[in-house]
Amino acid sequence: MSGTPPRIGILGIAGRMGRLLAEETPAAGATLAGGTLRPGAKLATLPPGLPVLPDIVALCEASDVVIDFTHAHAARAHAHAAAVTGTPLVLGTSGLSAADEAAVAEAAAKTPIVYAANFAPGVNLFLAIAERMAAALPPAQYDAEIVEMHHRQKVDAPSGTAVALGRAVAAGRGTTLEAAGRESGRDGHTGARGTGTIGFAALRGGQVVGEHTLIFAAASEHISLTHRSFDRRVYATGAVRAALWAVGKAPGLYSMKDVLGM
Amino acid sequence: MSGTPPRIGILGIAGRMGRLLAEETPAAGATLAGGTLRPGAKLATLPPGLPVLPDIVALCEASDVVIDFTHAHAARAHAHAAAVTGTPLVLGTSGLSAADEAAVAEAAAKTPIVYAANFAPGVNLFLAIAERMAAALPPAQYDAEIVEMHHRQKVDAPSGTAVALGRAVAAGRGTTLEAAGRESGRDGHTGARGTGTIGFAALRGGQVVGEHTLIFAAASEHISLTHRSFDRRVYATGAVRAALWAVGKAPGLYSMKDVLGM
Amino acid sequence: MSGTPPRIGILGIAGRMGRLLAEETPAAGATLAGGTLRPGAKLATLPPGLPVLPDIVALCEASDVVIDFTHAHAARAHAHAAAVTGTPLVLGTSGLSAADEAAVAEAAAKTPIVYAANFAPGVNLFLAIAERMAAALPPAQYDAEIVEMHHRQKVDAPSGTAVALGRAVAAGRGTTLEAAGRESGRDGHTGARGTGTIGFAALRGGQVVGEHTLIFAAASEHISLTHRSFDRRVYATGAVRAALWAVGKAPGLYSMKDVLGM
Amino acid sequence: MSGTPPRIGILGIAGRMGRLLAEETPAAGATLAGGTLRPGAKLATLPPGLPVLPDIVALCEASDVVIDFTHAHAARAHAHAAAVTGTPLVLGTSGLSAADEAAVAEAAAKTPIVYAANFAPGVNLFLAIAERMAAALPPAQYDAEIVEMHHRQKVDAPSGTAVALGRAVAAGRGTTLEAAGRESGRDGHTGARGTGTIGFAALRGGQVVGEHTLIFAAASEHISLTHRSFDRRVYATGAVRAALWAVGKAPGLYSMKDVLGM
Repeated sequence: MSGTPPRIGILGIAGRMGRLLAEETPAAGATLAGGTLRPGAKLATLPPGLPVLPDIVALCEASDVVIDFTHAHAARAHAHAAAVTGTPLVLGTSGLSAADEAAVAEAAAKTPIVYAANFAPGVNLFLAIAERMAAALPPAQYDAEIVEMHHRQKVDAPSGTAVALGRAVAAGRGTTLEAAGRESGRDGHTGARGTGTIGFAALRGGQVVGEHTLIFAAASEHISLTHRSFDRRVYATGAVRAALWAVGKAPGLYSMKDVLGM
Repeated sequence: MSGTPPRIGILGIAGRMGRLLAEETPAAGATLAGGTLRPGAKLATLPPGLPVLPDIVALCEASDVVIDFTHAHAARAHAHAAAVTGTPLVLGTSGLSAADEAAVAEAAAKTPIVYAANFAPGVNLFLAIAERMAAALPPAQYDAEIVEMHHRQKVDAPSGTAVALGRAVAAGRGTTLEAAGRESGRDGHTGARGTGTIGFAALRGGQVVGEHTLIFAAASEHISLTHRSFDRRVYATGAVRAALWAVGKAPGLYSMKDVLGM
Repeated sequence: MSGTPPRIGILGIAGRMGRLLAEETPAAGATLAGGTLRPGAKLATLPPGLPVLPDIVALCEASDVVIDFTHAHAARAHAHAAAVTGTPLVLGTSGLSAADEAAVAEAAAKTPIVYAANFAPGVNLFLAIAERMAAALPPAQYDAEIVEMHHRQKVDAPSGTAVALGRAVAAGRGTTLEAAGRESGRDGHTGARGTGTIGFAALRGGQVVGEHTLIFAAASEHISLTHRSFDRRVYATGAVRAALWAVGKAPGLYSMKDVLGM
Repeated sequence: MSGTPPRIGILGIAGRMGRLLAEETPAAGATLAGGTLRPGAKLATLPPGLPVLPDIVALCEASDVVIDFTHAHAARAHAHAAAVTGTPLVLGTSGLSAADEAAVAEAAAKTPIVYAANFAPGVNLFLAIAERMAAALPPAQYDAEIVEMHHRQKVDAPSGTAVALGRAVAAGRGTTLEAAGRESGRDGHTGARGTGTIGFAALRGGQVVGEHTLIFAAASEHISLTHRSFDRRVYATGAVRAALWAVGKAPGLYSMKDVLGM
């Protein structure tokens, strides 16, 4: 890294994620280059003197790397601007269409873009390790069970991350979650556990941000992996880390796996 | 306790539980008075020189206390013999009818009888504590969730002990499990958690003898209780402990709660 | 409870605990009567229109119950004013001298005072249950181990709560922690575990507010109890709960055990 | 794999590990070729009709692969015989000298030899994953803590596997455990946690075969890995698996990492 800390620009800096990103930037040793605002947004809680830029192009020009956690409908325009100015981009927006994703990939031919659904380093590591563990532990001996806990307001089960874990286990075993079979929400007369199936259980209570455990249970040993999120800040920390990583990289479409060296 | 170790007699001493009881008796500092055999049973693995008695009356006369883990259909006759000889009895047989239980209660007017469905000290303690915790923690703030894990062959969910835990929580809150509401096996669109309901989740895998966790989850704190059984020997240990406790007690029908001083 | 919600007064309302208490009061269905300020304190973050009272007597007169988390040196004066005005008092100040505690006890002859070192309901419940479990599980079979985790800045081990847990276990066994023996920080050649001793282990990392587990480990079963604190707000929640409980009680010195009905 | 199940030969088949290996062989779908006996050993509990071979050479000739969990002083001779007969060898003996290990490596030039200190698949996977996690999670943010629990008779702390885990974490971070710093057995005034150090804590109680947890604790998330051994049979299961893997492999010295594809 050169002597000067990288300048990070933040799209939608007054939003919930934008504010967290603005706080995490100096904490990571980088400089806050400035941000853009959603029309009508107020900057009350941001540092005084922070440059507010009129648009993505101006922000790109003022920054060594830009982070975007705004909205899916802006993703194409943002990626295009990053490509034109040659500014690395960290894209954390969810809900992109296939056409959006194709446009992002096209832009990535001209500038490095890190695109991920979840920037928590631990979650990405968890998914990668789950796949590796599943590849090493034969399904005939090791039953895979996933249990997650979330706050009492959550309206569905299992969580998206739990399902992603199940998919990772299936991939590690050379199959799919659908083909392996999913035993979710056991209740009543279930019959014996199916060999090779993947079990899911959901706990709800309190204000748990997110807790996931994957257990491989054999007769003589259990090996399990647990991830606990304590606040949403972890997503900001991961995105700033991805931004620092992207500076100076060759053009290309990267994931958090690349950032984390997995 | 007098200077002489109590003599324990074991009904069905060559059976699976009988053998464990025979092993646990000297381990607890008591003397093995002898045992009875199921017709056709062999004593190959028992200590040489062990007195084999022809029937329950002979066993009672040779013992300071007798343990019965045989069959429900013999419970009445065994309780009656214990009453006639004035020998304390530990009764661990399950599946007694109401008439059987009435006969046991009648016998208990003449000799101390400890009768319980589960002799594991930890499980009984767990149930008692679950009720007490539930009484102290208001359901509007503390969500109660129960998660259990058992071996892959188990065909139903949640486990009987998990349900007993749920009943204990409901009792501590001055209600019943049915009235509180049971959220078991969440899967799909569940809606937000109901206040005051009791959640159940079941994991299956490996050869887990039994593992139960009860969580009370509030926004700022979680308090949880876990019980893990490693082998069935724990039931024998608990029964021998009940036997030692029963020697010298007044006639009456006792439970493991009495033995454990809960 | 009468139809009108109780009015709670808060000493030192602009301090860290004072602000949390002010937030928790309406959340618990009570009315915020007002507060006093430490000389020089500012009220920037408090609700507009909140009555600021000049001293403890004025606060007592405006309130149905008063909460004090200020300083040990003010405890006597606060307890005296509560006694004179007949206002229930919740006292959460730590570091009181024996003379301070005697003065508090004297005041409690005239008004109900709830005095506790830790207002987290779960921690108080945990301590009560630890003692009960220890009384039920013989030390020759059940090894008691306590493991705690706290943030990386903590400079001592084991935590005060871990030691309090150890004392509760010893009390349940009819002995003291000193007499039972403390095995803390095992490292190197330790020799086999001593029967009846109490083990302590400390983990440090991240920003853990506080996590404590007490394990009773026998050959065939483990029973364990875990408490996790997620933020300091739990102390405010507990104190407001104690305040609501104290309204209308007879004069006397109470603890959180009384509040929690343990 | 060809249609005929591989024939496995077991050195010291009447010993504690030998008997477990003999039980695990058919369970894994292989054929028990026979075994050798330690002078004076009895075969009382082995399957009737099992071929007992006079020595290692005879056993090699009757087997497709041989497993050795006997003694370090025999390792050279066994490896030499395997090389001469071209029989794959699984070597689980501990305590080999450097000269022994050199002789084993020499033999491995002529036949495949799997040599490992611990054949539990989960433990080997655990070590590999610990290193990978450590490489991905920066020590300035993620504090690494290792806690282990073993039976009450264990006389030293931390366990060998815990230390191996610490070494794996250090290796993943590009350093050594000694250079990173080891905080083991915290007790008393410890000062704040050192950045990048590795913490160790030891619990003792009951008859725990072995339980290890590695925690990476950051401010916003924790990620942890737990391994629990329930009985020593897991070592036999792993060794039989290594034997099946070794059949048909090129000569060479392999580890459990190779067997597990890590």
